[in-house]
Formats: sequence, structure tokens, C-alpha cells
Amino acid sequence: MDRIDEFNNYRTRMNSRILSIDHLGIKRFFNLDTAAYENGALNKKTKEMMGLVASMVLRCNDCIDYHVIQCVECGTTDDEFYELFNVALVVGGSIVIPHLRHAVEILDLSRKKPGNS
Amino acid sequence: MDRIDEFNNYRTRMNSRILSIDHLGIKRFFNLDTAAYENGALNKKTKEMMGLVASMVLRCNDCIDYHVIQCVECGTTDDEFYELFNVALVVGGSIVIPHLRHAVEILDLSRKKPGNS
Amino acid sequence: MDRIDEFNNYRTRMNSRILSIDHLGIKRFFNLDTAAYENGALNKKTKEMMGLVASMVLRCNDCIDYHVIQCVECGTTDDEFYELFNVALVVGGSIVIPHLRHAVEILDLSRKKPGNS
Amino acid sequence: MDRIDEFNNYRTRMNSRILSIDHLGIKRFFNLDTAAYENGALNKKTKEMMGLVASMVLRCNDCIDYHVIQCVECGTTDDEFYELFNVALVVGGSIVIPHLRHAVEILDLSRKKPGNS
Amino acid sequence: MDRIDEFNNYRTRMNSRILSIDHLGIKRFFNLDTAAYENGALNKKTKEMMGLVASMVLRCNDCIDYHVIQCVECGTTDDEFYELFNVALVVGGSIVIPHLRHAVEILDLSRKKPGNS
Amino acid sequence: MDRIDEFNNYRTRMNSRILSIDHLGIKRFFNLDTAAYENGALNKKTKEMMGLVASMVLRCNDCIDYHVIQCVECGTTDDEFYELFNVALVVGGSIVIPHLRHAVEILDLSRKKPGNS
Repeated sequence: MDRIDEFNNYRTRMNSRILSIDHLGIKRFFNLDTAAYENGALNKKTKEMMGLVASMVLRCNDCIDYHVIQCVECGTTDDEFYELFNVALVVGGSIVIPHLRHAVEILDLSRKKPGNS
Repeated sequence: MDRIDEFNNYRTRMNSRILSIDHLGIKRFFNLDTAAYENGALNKKTKEMMGLVASMVLRCNDCIDYHVIQCVECGTTDDEFYELFNVALVVGGSIVIPHLRHAVEILDLSRKKPGNS
Repeated sequence: MDRIDEFNNYRTRMNSRILSIDHLGIKRFFNLDTAAYENGALNKKTKEMMGLVASMVLRCNDCIDYHVIQCVECGTTDDEFYELFNVALVVGGSIVIPHLRHAVEILDLSRKKPGNS
Repeated sequence: MDRIDEFNNYRTRMNSRILSIDHLGIKRFFNLDTAAYENGALNKKTKEMMGLVASMVLRCNDCIDYHVIQCVECGTTDDEFYELFNVALVVGGSIVIPHLRHAVEILDLSRKKPGNS
Repeated sequence: MDRIDEFNNYRTRMNSRILSIDHLGIKRFFNLDTAAYENGALNKKTKEMMGLVASMVLRCNDCIDYHVIQCVECGTTDDEFYELFNVALVVGGSIVIPHLRHAVEILDLSRKKPGNS
Repeated sequence: MDRIDEFNNYRTRMNSRILSIDHLGIKRFFNLDTAAYENGALNKKTKEMMGLVASMVLRCNDCIDYHVIQCVECGTTDDEFYELFNVALVVGGSIVIPHLRHAVEILDLSRKKPGNS
């Protein structure tokens, strides 16, 4: 089990625990979060890339994992990722570098998964 | 002179002052910043929209002004702006709302400028 | 018209503009935001005070204005405000001090409004 | 030894190391930090809940661990925690979700400790 | 009365109001803040420059005003300021640029004050 | 292999992977980052200490690791570190404490490395 599987397992288990909570606000927030990246005036791929840039400048590795995986599934190419990483690096500065290392590591792992390339 | 003109004037005057500083690192950083949004594997419009999302979740009104104006010039439609605003709002939370108000205000002002619509 | 009136007018006008946008996600987010502070397992006053602490450590003056006004309406006493300010100051550090100045200024203005004391 | 014990052991060991430093400012800051949550115009439970909200929106897992444990000791109920989590989620946005997962995990672990329930 | 005078007047008035509050924690925090920049193992000038870098990467204009003025009083040269600005820009990224504009503006104003040069 | 070796190995491996990317912007950013700390109007030691303060208030453990190691190599004394830690703690507040624990741990490990003391 690699880091992506570990991340996905933990995320699935804890989100399931959270959604078992009887609190309408929390449930609705999770629905809004899912809906925000669906195809609309902007397509899902563009919005997932926006989510990834936002996660990088806010420096959240778990969010980076999630959006890298989503971007890969939406067909983001390596060159597109590098352009996106550069925007995040310029906006957010060297404090983003540790998260760039993380993002590249997860991207490389994602490319090795059966079904991705 | 409206807020957009004031912002542009102050930005132009101070950037000119900063670039008069004899410091190679600062000059190069400004060049990197400009280059990050040029057409490449991702087009300028997509990267300006990414810059706007990043500016909203990092909650910087001056950066929001700049990227809204750039996005308008790149042909971003109102529906695209609204989708983008929604992503920024969901990622960054209600603390982003004052900056959403600011972004909408600047967008409305930009649309009224001769040449935009 | 003092700063509180100006803030309320601008906020009301721009929120109305935002809610005129035909985007379900944005509308729902605003509803979630309103609902989060209603009486429940924790009462409105406690949650507004939490919102104020969060606004102070995240250093957002507009959010501070909003929650100070709400806390005053919920009957928060001066001594309770001071305790809350101290928690925000200790958690967030001296970078919070300019926002503490802002919060105290708005609190003093709110106390002078007819109907508050 | 579970995650709570590990966290407590590391925290105790390193705080002890830090307080062995002969620096008056650091010692006094630690005293201020402890004093900020003691009973006063607001009771300890309310202030610990404020500390937890602040830790969630600032996205610090170690601080979340500490304040969840304190809130449990002060008698915070599950429904109160859920309301608090919802405020943090709405204020801070989806970038808080990984820390909500962490908070719920620590809460569940805390409830299983002998003496808590 | 220029921006520096306005800032100093507002800061003095509100700090005086805050220190009139009968809350030991708040008073002690202000004392710690003052003491942190006094001559010690590191001299005041070095610590004020550190405070300025921290204020720039945390993007707080009021804190930038304060520390620029202090650094000028401690004899920081223009070349030292530019090096410091460059570190802040590289660490914090382009989101720091609006605050760099602010810092340079305040620096230029400070140099024109009688007694500085 | 202790934490410092692990950190250095991972950092070296991933930076090498990143610099293998054919993207001029990313390469240039890394060059700017390296150049920012070289001797100039301010010496390397002062700038590394500034980088450490910035890393602490921005709460990035990997950046703290890097700059603590650099500061040790530049001859920063323990008393200078403590003064610096105090500035970071006062500016950034108690949310910095977990990162202060991390910084002190890395400092103690660095002092035990052959060649440091």
C-alpha cells in the first residue's frame, strides 16, 4: 500500500465518520464542496486545477494529494502541471517549495498507478 | 477617477519606484511574476483565473483587483467568474466573503470601462 | 454616518448584489454561513464569540466588524470581550494587535449606538 | 501507546526542554498562554472551545489535539463539538476539512480513554 | 499630516485605550512585545529587521509601518532594506508585492522626515 | 539515520527531481531563492536568521529544518537562537509553539552532529 492508497483509505474512513454525524451544516458543506468542482461554465478539469493552486498557496498537503489525483483523472498533462506549479510557486513564494516537493512526489506516484500514465 | 484608475495609478507609480532599485533579485522576481501568466502549456486566461483564485483564498484585495482586470481583458465571462468565485469561497470559507464583495465590485466597475463589456 | 453605518451599508449593498447572482453554490454558502451562528447545542452568543476569535486570528477587519456588532447584540459584556480579545492575542500573536485596535474601536462605537450600552 | 499518548509525551518533553532555556520572554509567553484559558469573565470551557476554533481555522493539528483534549476534560458534549466544528468549517472553508478529520479522530480517541466518555 | 503621522496618532490613541483595559493578560502581552526587540544577544536593529520580514510575509501593513519606522531609527541603510525586502519577497511570493509597495512608500516618507535621512 | 539526514535526503532527492523539469520559471525561482541568502549588504547569517523567523511565523517545519541547519553552519549561537525564537513567538503567537518545539528539537540534533557544537 503506497502513500496514495493510505491517503485515500484514511480520507474515506474519516469522511464516512464525519458524514455519520447528525449535523445538517456539516453535511451541506460537504455537498457544496463536491458540487464546486463539477462541470459548469468552467469544466471540472479547470476547476480541479484551480483547487490545486489554492491548496498549494494555502500549503495543505492533504488537499494537494486530493487535487493532484483529481487533476490526473481529468487528463491534466505534465506540462500543464508544471505551469500550474510555477503559478503557485510565484504567488506563494519559497514557503511553497516543501509542498511543491510533495505535489511532484504524488504526481509521480499517480502516474505509476494502473490506468494512469 | 474611479477605484480602478486609482489602483492602476498607485500600482504603476510604486512598481516603477521599486524597479528603480538596483537589486537584481527584486528585478528578477518581478520578471518571473510577469512571465508566469504568459501563454504556454496553459493559456494566459486560465493562469490569470488561477491567480485570481489564489488571491481570493490568500485574501489580498490589491491582487484581486489586478487579476480581475486581467481576467476581463482575457475574455472571462460573468458565468466563468461566478464559478471561480464559488471555488474560492468553498476552499477559503466565509473569511473570503469580504474579498468576494471586493471582487464583485471591481468586476462591475471593469465591465463599465470603455472597451470592456 | 459613522464607520459602523458605512460598513453596514456597503455590506448590505454588495451582499444583495452577490445574492442576485444566479449561482446555487454561492447562495447555499451564504445560507450555511447564516445558519452556523443560530441557537443550537451552543447558543448564538457563544458561536458569535467564536466567530470573532476566528476573525481576529485570521486578521480580517470586516469580519471583526460584523462579529463585534453581533456579539454586542447578543449581550456580550465588556469583560467578556476583553477575555476573548486576550485569547485571540495569545493565539495569534502581535500580528493581531492592529486588529485588536480595530476591534476595540468598533466595540466603543457600537456601545454608543442608541439601543446598545 | 496511542496518538494521544505520543502527542502528550512529545509535548511534555519538548515544553520542558523549552522552559529550561534561560530566556525571560519565552517563559513569560508560556505563562500568558496558560493563563489565557483559566476561569474568568468567560469560563475555561468556553475559552478552550474558542482556542479549538482558532486552531482549526489556523490549521494546526498539534493545537487541535491539545484543545480537543482540554475541551473533553471541561465536559464539552459531542453536540457542542459538532456545532463548533461547523463554525470552523464555515469560517475556514474546505481547506479545514483535513483538520476536521484530524479533530474527529482525536475526539473519538479521547472518548475511549478511561475517565472520559 | 502625512500617513506616518496619521498612523502614529491612531496607534498611540488606540494603544492607550487598550492599555486602559483592566486585563492583566493584555497588558503583559504588550510588555512582552516591547521587550522582544530590545538589545540582547541580538541587537535591536537586527530584531526590528526580523520583525519587518515577519510583518511582510504575514502581510500586515500596520506592522510594516511600525517596523520600517523602527528600522530607520536604528540606522538601517537603504541597501539593507532592499536585501531584507528581497528575502521577504522570495519567501512570501508575489502576494507580498502590494505590501512591498507599501513598505517602499513608508520608507520613502520616513527618509523625508526631519532627523532621518 | 536521524531526522536531519532523512530531511536532507528527501529534500535533495526531490529538489533534483524538480530541477529535472524543463520549466524556466521554476528553475529561475530556485536560483532566486538560493541567491537571496548570499552575503551582500546584509550578511548570510543575518539573512538566514530572517528566513528562520519567517518560516516560524508562517509555520512551515521543513523550512524551519532548513534554516536552523543553515543558521548553525553560519555560527548562530544558542543565545541568538533563543532571541530569534522569542521574536517569532511574540509576532506569531501560541500557534507557533508546536513549531518552536520542532525548531528546538532540530537545533539540539544539529548541535550533536560532528563538526557542529
